[in-house]
Amino acid sequence: MARHSQLYRQGMQEMRHHLGEKADNLIAKIESISEEFAKVNVEFPYGELYTRDILDNRVRELCTVAALTVQGFSSPQLKLHIEAALNCGVSREEIVEIITQMIAYAGFPAATNALLAAKEVFDETSKAEAQKTEAQD
Amino acid sequence: MARHSQLYRQGMQEMRHHLGEKADNLIAKIESISEEFAKVNVEFPYGELYTRDILDNRVRELCTVAALTVQGFSSPQLKLHIEAALNCGVSREEIVEIITQMIAYAGFPAATNALLAAKEVFDETSKAEAQKTEAQD
Amino acid sequence: MARHSQLYRQGMQEMRHHLGEKADNLIAKIESISEEFAKVNVEFPYGELYTRDILDNRVRELCTVAALTVQGFSSPQLKLHIEAALNCGVSREEIVEIITQMIAYAGFPAATNALLAAKEVFDETSKAEAQKTEAQD
Amino acid sequence: MARHSQLYRQGMQEMRHHLGEKADNLIAKIESISEEFAKVNVEFPYGELYTRDILDNRVRELCTVAALTVQGFSSPQLKLHIEAALNCGVSREEIVEIITQMIAYAGFPAATNALLAAKEVFDETSKAEAQKTEAQD
Amino acid sequence: MARHSQLYRQGMQEMRHHLGEKADNLIAKIESISEEFAKVNVEFPYGELYTRDILDNRVRELCTVAALTVQGFSSPQLKLHIEAALNCGVSREEIVEIITQMIAYAGFPAATNALLAAKEVFDETSKAEAQKTEAQD
Amino acid sequence: MARHSQLYRQGMQEMRHHLGEKADNLIAKIESISEEFAKVNVEFPYGELYTRDILDNRVRELCTVAALTVQGFSSPQLKLHIEAALNCGVSREEIVEIITQMIAYAGFPAATNALLAAKEVFDETSKAEAQKTEAQD
Repeated sequence: MARHSQLYRQGMQEMRHHLGEKADNLIAKIESISEEFAKVNVEFPYGELYTRDILDNRVRELCTVAALTVQGFSSPQLKLHIEAALNCGVSREEIVEIITQMIAYAGFPAATNALLAAKEVFDETSKAEAQKTEAQD
Repeated sequence: MARHSQLYRQGMQEMRHHLGEKADNLIAKIESISEEFAKVNVEFPYGELYTRDILDNRVRELCTVAALTVQGFSSPQLKLHIEAALNCGVSREEIVEIITQMIAYAGFPAATNALLAAKEVFDETSKAEAQKTEAQD
Repeated sequence: MARHSQLYRQGMQEMRHHLGEKADNLIAKIESISEEFAKVNVEFPYGELYTRDILDNRVRELCTVAALTVQGFSSPQLKLHIEAALNCGVSREEIVEIITQMIAYAGFPAATNALLAAKEVFDETSKAEAQKTEAQD
Repeated sequence: MARHSQLYRQGMQEMRHHLGEKADNLIAKIESISEEFAKVNVEFPYGELYTRDILDNRVRELCTVAALTVQGFSSPQLKLHIEAALNCGVSREEIVEIITQMIAYAGFPAATNALLAAKEVFDETSKAEAQKTEAQD
Repeated sequence: MARHSQLYRQGMQEMRHHLGEKADNLIAKIESISEEFAKVNVEFPYGELYTRDILDNRVRELCTVAALTVQGFSSPQLKLHIEAALNCGVSREEIVEIITQMIAYAGFPAATNALLAAKEVFDETSKAEAQKTEAQD
Repeated sequence: MARHSQLYRQGMQEMRHHLGEKADNLIAKIESISEEFAKVNVEFPYGELYTRDILDNRVRELCTVAALTVQGFSSPQLKLHIEAALNCGVSREEIVEIITQMIAYAGFPAATNALLAAKEVFDETSKAEAQKTEAQD
């Protein structure tokens, strides 16, 4: 897409690295409502911030999972970043551990809802992998 | 102190590893208001959670800094955990980077206040180190 | 209804101006649980505050949309006030713009959820208008 | 269960007093994801805090309902504690009253969502009681 | 003041019962900025809600302390309601206990800040009482 | 400054329009901690969002005041945007009115703190104007 900036293309590539195919679906959905929103969503966190070398993606995604656990209301984004954390090489055990740690900073309701969100993502991921394996046999 | 549980002693040791002398001061202050509160504050996050092997303290403290940045209202605790992150080997640059990342998840006001809190901690730390060096000369 | 105060009747009228038929449905539902809650819900924001001349309803509703976007957890009320904003003459483009502006103050998760809520309201509104037009033909 | 601590068994008993059978279901669900999380969820609020004599369970649960109303995002836990409040002898009228009071501290959206959550719990409770009565006839 | 409604006068009386002389100071300060804000602040929570018989003031104030503890950012109001709770007959021990309970629902940072706020109020109250006793001798 | 992007220069100009001299002071302070943070703070909200024609600055700033009132913890930014609203032509009466409206969406503590913040800004502004007038005489 010629009309997109260098920053956008770089961001889209980074976003796909974190979210796989869901990156394109999410941005297409947002773009159907607002091109400006979709543009800044790609360029700003993914093009501008996540590509900087100072922290690796594993740590970045674990921190985002911690932050969204504490935020409480952003469960769709929390699920997305739990999946992104898995895609970046974080283990299920580490995700569960950081959510458990957040009990201390945000209490049980926020942490319980994050734990159940993680369970949903793990189940979906297991199912998707099982289907892929089956298709290959 | 014989009256403390094994979990408490383990927690106090872990807490000192994160917060240095401030651990004892903080717990003494809380204990003067409520022994129960001080007890669970030591036993639960530090004795029970932080001693588990699954994540190292660097990552745990970076995640806590991210979470408290997003929480917005807990600046005394944010400053404490920025210092704890430094004590656990996180660099200033990494702390600033994770706070900058949080712009995307909680907006500029929360992230700006966290950045200014980090500056205060860095300045205090530099000053304390300068005094220590001076005293040694 | 003779039992209602002047303030209540004034509030109910203002509320209908913002929410159309949904005003009566919402209040009836709340009244079935608590008469007191329904009473203050009509009298206080709509009877007391919204009828004051200092700001027009367009600006009031845009500010409420901004505020509920940032609040994050109140999506049913956000959808209601997106509809109210449309009823008070705010354009879809303006609603999307103010939600986009809120990225800067509350981050992407809160703003994305508000954007998707706006999309739902716009789709429902388009559908309702199409049905009305059809019925008239 | 021999492997559980004294504190855990005490907490489980207290939790059943508040939540009935739902206590065991909830903990089993959490335990299937994380044994550590389930353990601290039972031991800490129920074993450690709720068993202390200083406040009775009626007041404790009403305060929790108030707190979760204000928190806004924790509706599953709010519904659980509305039910717990009923189980501890709080009346429906008192629950509705404290939610109404919270309008003053957290605004209408948070309080309205809590009121509708209370309605759902009341309806489920009435239905369950009707079925029990029917079964006995 | 002849210009005030019956509801306002009733609210002002209730507010003085909770906050003593601070009620008049607070309302005077608010009134100097906005008469409307002062009016609804007196009429709505104190005139309309707190005068209802369904819950006693002890429970109402304890619930407000719990709610503002969880809210995190409203420390001036939390301190005010800790004092109001004392004025309504709640003991210091009960206030500390409900704040401690809130660790489970909002985490340590929110609860710690509330505990330290309680300490400040207790110290001010003790000092004021000591001065009063001294003055009487 | 040659090193800055077109977007940055445009953002800095817009930011000065909203915040006057404070824009440069704020950015210089942030830049001394993190160049990246300062860059995105100028480019993103001011360069990218606020320069779009869809809403005028009066409405944008009133919405931001409403949003930060509800957010509760961001008082330094709230004060900044109350001043920005005044600079963009919003009247004091309108600012007080929108804060009063927010009682309905976020309760009295958040709105009271915003009202007192507005009072501080108004007093500072009056004082600064008086000094300017005096200097001219």
